[in-house]
Amino acid sequence: MKVHVIGIGLIGGSMVLDIKSLHPEATIYGIDNNESHLAEAIALGVVDQAATFDDLAEADFVIVSVPVDVALIVLPKVLDAVGENTIVFEVGSTKTPICEAIANHPKRRNFIATHPIAGTEFSGPSAAIKNLFQGKTNIICEVEKTTFKLQEKALDLFKSMGMRIRYMDPKSHDKHIAYVSHLSHISSFMLGKTVIDKEKVEQDIFDMAGSGFESTVRLAKSSPAMWTPIFKQNKKQVVKGLEEYISNLIHFKELLENDDYDAIFNEMQSVNKIKEILNGMKK
Amino acid sequence: MKVHVIGIGLIGGSMVLDIKSLHPEATIYGIDNNESHLAEAIALGVVDQAATFDDLAEADFVIVSVPVDVALIVLPKVLDAVGENTIVFEVGSTKTPICEAIANHPKRRNFIATHPIAGTEFSGPSAAIKNLFQGKTNIICEVEKTTFKLQEKALDLFKSMGMRIRYMDPKSHDKHIAYVSHLSHISSFMLGKTVIDKEKVEQDIFDMAGSGFESTVRLAKSSPAMWTPIFKQNKKQVVKGLEEYISNLIHFKELLENDDYDAIFNEMQSVNKIKEILNGMKK
Repeated sequence: MKVHVIGIGLIGGSMVLDIKSLHPEATIYGIDNNESHLAEAIALGVVDQAATFDDLAEADFVIVSVPVDVALIVLPKVLDAVGENTIVFEVGSTKTPICEAIANHPKRRNFIATHPIAGTEFSGPSAAIKNLFQGKTNIICEVEKTTFKLQEKALDLFKSMGMRIRYMDPKSHDKHIAYVSHLSHISSFMLGKTVIDKEKVEQDIFDMAGSGFESTVRLAKSSPAMWTPIFKQNKKQVVKGLEEYISNLIHFKELLENDDYDAIFNEMQSVNKIKEILNGMKK
Repeated sequence: MKVHVIGIGLIGGSMVLDIKSLHPEATIYGIDNNESHLAEAIALGVVDQAATFDDLAEADFVIVSVPVDVALIVLPKVLDAVGENTIVFEVGSTKTPICEAIANHPKRRNFIATHPIAGTEFSGPSAAIKNLFQGKTNIICEVEKTTFKLQEKALDLFKSMGMRIRYMDPKSHDKHIAYVSHLSHISSFMLGKTVIDKEKVEQDIFDMAGSGFESTVRLAKSSPAMWTPIFKQNKKQVVKGLEEYISNLIHFKELLENDDYDAIFNEMQSVNKIKEILNGMKK
């Protein structure tokens, strides 16, 4: 089995680590614009050897795991290069622009649009970890546009990594993910900014911040190179989500300014049901 | 050794669990308005037996771990009741109103104002866990107002639980903690609200939300009864922090609306230094 990974970071790297565990006979080929990432991935054993686009004709699987702006450019070239039996998938956090970019490609049926909802705030080959996808959701868009045989091959792989499959159209994906992922990142980045701006003497933050602060700003460690194009591609939904979030914060501030503590209590109590929602996520 | 805990939840309960480990001969007495909490704490072995304010005269330590609005009422009564050698401390998330409430009490020197920066999003006696305070910071306010002998007794106890001690005046404490704790809670509650309001069909949240969302909304599970009075007592600082946070979010939204992706990249990159700040916290 020949598996190519284009862009060897957290997601692509973790995927091929699992594939290698599941299929020890597989050869993992790496393609990365960043020479030092490629060398690091080989040194870490994440990838067996370097490859080029000319090698893609022989590939069984091609995983495209690059920032979503790069994916728009790379994906058509990948499809140009692959063979008849190659299945290509991309793993980014926006789906509408990706699906549009290859909608009319002659090899559209060799492609399956996916978004594995898994990750950490780290990036690069050293961020790759085994079993990252166990119990996680993989959202598949426009499944009907992929050749049935290759569809099955991809789904078998995802299931063998422990992923649950959910089908969704790209626009619904982008709309929902703006709320449950993209907005969390902006909330976290701007919270980090607010505190850093305020606390010029950083030692005060170190000493007074607890695990709560750490939890809410964890995502502010995320890669700007990865996230800037996500916000760009999902701009409309992200702006809408941000407007609603800002409006809720302003409302909370006004309740506080008006000393309406009963309303503040009720606001928090009604959001407490997030407990059950988060518990549901763990099932 | 006689240790009384008034309000047996996450913080008070965890404290006495550690005290019992460190001093197996100690008797832990519990006082709680909530009869079922008291019974639960005894059943869980967090507390040895129930007590009343009449018993406080004989106490070595009295831990007041109640919501901060209740603390304002309870603390003077506790000081009225304690003996000459009793050290009383309170563990809430605001310090100015607490210190003011007992500033002129005849037994002010039996009191030490503390804020152990430790906790989880859970509450009640069943939330009590051992070693919660290991490696955490305990902020002590107005240390000079406590009798030296009792000061030493309290500090020895905190250090034996593994806490680092930091001294701060109550106003500075309340100002900084608004940013590194209170703001995180509001950010998390309002993010939870925004997503819940949007996603009426909750299954969509379960399936699409990943660990990032979970991390940013974790604090939205917190107790409204505990947090409403904190926001009330620290209103001025919290409103200020919220204004800055909202202003940063609006700025980010405007950058997005204006397609200024270079500025968005730079914003995120400059906040990335939170990595080093968070790593510093772990030391």
